[in-house]
Amino acid sequence: MAAISPTRAENYPLWYQEVIKQADLAENSPVRGCMIIKPYGYAIWEAIQQDLDRRFKALGHQNAYFPLLIPLSYLEKEAEHVEGFAKECAVVTHHRLEPGEDQALVPAGPLEEPLVIRPTSETMIGQMMSKWVQSYRDLPIKLNQWANVMRWEMRTRMFLRTSEFLWQEGHTAHASGEEAQQETKTMFKVYADFAKERLAMPVIMGEKTVTERFPGAENTYTIEAMMQDKKALQAGTSHYLGQNFSKAADIRFLDQEGKSQLAYTTSWGVSTRLIGGLIMSHSDDDGLVLPPSIAPYQIVVMPIYRNDEEKAQVMPFCKRLEQELQSEHFQGAPLRLHIDDRPIRGGDKNWQWIKKGVPIRIEVGPRDIAKGSVFVAQRHLDPKDKQSFLLEDFVIKAAGLLVEMQRALYRRAKDYREENTIEVANKADFEAFFKAPKNEKTIYGGFVKCYALDDENLEQQVAHLKVSPRCILLDQEGQSGTCIFSGKETKTKILFARAY
Amino acid sequence: MAAISPTRAENYPLWYQEVIKQADLAENSPVRGCMIIKPYGYAIWEAIQQDLDRRFKALGHQNAYFPLLIPLSYLEKEAEHVEGFAKECAVVTHHRLEPGEDQALVPAGPLEEPLVIRPTSETMIGQMMSKWVQSYRDLPIKLNQWANVMRWEMRTRMFLRTSEFLWQEGHTAHASGEEAQQETKTMFKVYADFAKERLAMPVIMGEKTVTERFPGAENTYTIEAMMQDKKALQAGTSHYLGQNFSKAADIRFLDQEGKSQLAYTTSWGVSTRLIGGLIMSHSDDDGLVLPPSIAPYQIVVMPIYRNDEEKAQVMPFCKRLEQELQSEHFQGAPLRLHIDDRPIRGGDKNWQWIKKGVPIRIEVGPRDIAKGSVFVAQRHLDPKDKQSFLLEDFVIKAAGLLVEMQRALYRRAKDYREENTIEVANKADFEAFFKAPKNEKTIYGGFVKCYALDDENLEQQVAHLKVSPRCILLDQEGQSGTCIFSGKETKTKILFARAY
Repeated sequence: MAAISPTRAENYPLWYQEVIKQADLAENSPVRGCMIIKPYGYAIWEAIQQDLDRRFKALGHQNAYFPLLIPLSYLEKEAEHVEGFAKECAVVTHHRLEPGEDQALVPAGPLEEPLVIRPTSETMIGQMMSKWVQSYRDLPIKLNQWANVMRWEMRTRMFLRTSEFLWQEGHTAHASGEEAQQETKTMFKVYADFAKERLAMPVIMGEKTVTERFPGAENTYTIEAMMQDKKALQAGTSHYLGQNFSKAADIRFLDQEGKSQLAYTTSWGVSTRLIGGLIMSHSDDDGLVLPPSIAPYQIVVMPIYRNDEEKAQVMPFCKRLEQELQSEHFQGAPLRLHIDDRPIRGGDKNWQWIKKGVPIRIEVGPRDIAKGSVFVAQRHLDPKDKQSFLLEDFVIKAAGLLVEMQRALYRRAKDYREENTIEVANKADFEAFFKAPKNEKTIYGGFVKCYALDDENLEQQVAHLKVSPRCILLDQEGQSGTCIFSGKETKTKILFARAY
Repeated sequence: MAAISPTRAENYPLWYQEVIKQADLAENSPVRGCMIIKPYGYAIWEAIQQDLDRRFKALGHQNAYFPLLIPLSYLEKEAEHVEGFAKECAVVTHHRLEPGEDQALVPAGPLEEPLVIRPTSETMIGQMMSKWVQSYRDLPIKLNQWANVMRWEMRTRMFLRTSEFLWQEGHTAHASGEEAQQETKTMFKVYADFAKERLAMPVIMGEKTVTERFPGAENTYTIEAMMQDKKALQAGTSHYLGQNFSKAADIRFLDQEGKSQLAYTTSWGVSTRLIGGLIMSHSDDDGLVLPPSIAPYQIVVMPIYRNDEEKAQVMPFCKRLEQELQSEHFQGAPLRLHIDDRPIRGGDKNWQWIKKGVPIRIEVGPRDIAKGSVFVAQRHLDPKDKQSFLLEDFVIKAAGLLVEMQRALYRRAKDYREENTIEVANKADFEAFFKAPKNEKTIYGGFVKCYALDDENLEQQVAHLKVSPRCILLDQEGQSGTCIFSGKETKTKILFARAY
């Protein structure tokens, strides 16, 4: 019997919630649409932050911090931008509380200008860049901010769509459009590499269609991953903003000829949404499955003993294992091992760690010690499929097992995506593929690639299927085909899917 | 001539602002009272975070994340608490923007209940703990959160008092009052150790007087540091909350006898204010002075050459220096070195790094290379007081020089505090010490220790001198004396000062 109820096949959205609950990653808060990230979930976010931060800094980006509150007038400077965010802004209108008529506290001290809790910081950071940039010598500016942002959402799901979320937002300004475009692509690539190497999450790299671009961007690159319900998750985006935001904020510089020019800017971000993607890429009906690269603990050791005498044998053996593994590394860092000696039933303990997705679980009891061995279970295999290793052998093999598991998870997710991706050449096949089954809870659909014109109508043409264009596929240069909707010749091959 | 104008003696508050500006640490934002922390300032915050985070985790605390917005009704559950913060709350009242009568956007979608941007998170976290705690087995809970908070301030100063600031807030719940009190003291000690070891900032450890406690706390421990204008800075606080917040949030557990009990809670925090304290503890009339332990770069190397031929000699020598220093460590971490090869005048470059407070500056020119030596300046000594070392000798001595500098800065700050601290036995001496000079800009006063009753009147008795009680001194057990205000016998010896 599966440890998570319902299973994926029974009810995918409820399964997702239950995986989060059983792994103790997060929970809904009493504040509408805002979640609480619990220690085990936050540890995953810290691992994501550390790795990305290292990548950003290696490319010359610097961290900084900008105000949470943005004056409404700033937001309004870029027309498309404010239109994109106006419907989901949390607005601060007062700066104190005072007893009202019935002595209950009410907002007081109205602000002259309303302030918006940042949904993103292009307008604020642009404003500051315009102060900091005078000459081409001041460029490029390459900044990143780790912060909370807020977009008031009506329908929320933990990690995937919450009113407040944590993210990083990179913001850069450059003297030329080419350089800014290069930056956009570089960071796009950083996200794809990160998703693959750390989250074992295969992604499709593409460019957003006209209607799906970031509000105010010239173009938006996106990484799209397939979840196990065959829906797409937009996992990270990188925007080339051209001169739109530098016009709005007047980011001007004197070029080498002494002429005044507008800078070219970019922005790029990933958020705690990645944790949602991680969960839905690998987890199974027994709960969370974590790639070793991002797991807070890669190995959990469970000592098994019935009395003090056995404990006196078992614990030193566990400690020896811990000590010997201390000099072993995975992806350049020492292995992360935890000995769980809580006085609870062995079976319960084992299932807790299964549901928390720990890559390797080790049981050590008196019988194992007699043989000098440890009993090893790997999370991505069947829970009954355990293997006995001599302690020395396990120490030598541990890092290798983690490498294999990291690859296996990536491979499995990629195979799943490939199996559920088709190319179609006409509208009928497209419609048939995305036609909802009678039982709405059935997992259906997948990714469809087809030629289609990237125009303003595209979204509406597929909306009745609850499908959206995810991205224009890259590397299609020189090729063209017939748009399955209009019958016109086009160079854009587009990926479609139902999406989060 | 000093690099910073005005000097400390001329105008201390303006000197402070100018040090920040010249070191490029931060600047005021267009949003009232909110600052922008620029990369060099943020790097200092990252160093503070890293070190504290390590200390917290070593003591078993786990990081988590709670919502930014707190329902007004939560805040109201603890009467003293809400009274303490009501006057400085940023209030969210709407969740979207819509075109108004003149088409300009106005707040729309009024919220049923106003939400307050967290000034601190006791009420929110308490509410969640009450859900998580059932039995004594669930205790203690030891959480920490790195977050932004907001307290609407009328008079702000960068780092010291800003409407939005970054901080960490620890929140713990325990089964007994003794355990919670112990936790409060442990974290208090962590802050004092951190201030000394990393910031080279000597602090006085004490307990807040009745009127200066955190709103809702049973008692508050504080670390107080003397700035160079002889004012006190409250640099960190740790609160024993007793059962006040667990009553408000109903954090109940079944004890070992199966009886329902209220938990005991604590909270403790330090913020970006520490950077303000760091600046005012060590910096001089030439700008920022950073202790090696917290400096983004401990050593900056400035290559000096007039042509490509000289460059071809100088750069490899600098690289060799960098390489040889790579295996040297300070406080367990590799030395942080930066080669500044920007094409700007050597004098300007040197002064830039002086103003940025880099512990060790090294000049390398053709003449130095001929001798196989480097020209070394230490930030805490006179800028003209440079020393020539053979490269090999410097590599051996570098870490030691940093250790000496770290100690020297601590010693200097401590001596300054001792020189400006007196004990008084009567009110006349107290008044004389704090009497403002004719020229308001003169640095005056200092720390005064004296016996005084810790009662509700204490604050008012010294307010006319712009002085406040900073803390009750610890380790005064068994001793007593005469309150200089009331003439009554008392056991409380109190530290007074003007304060930030």
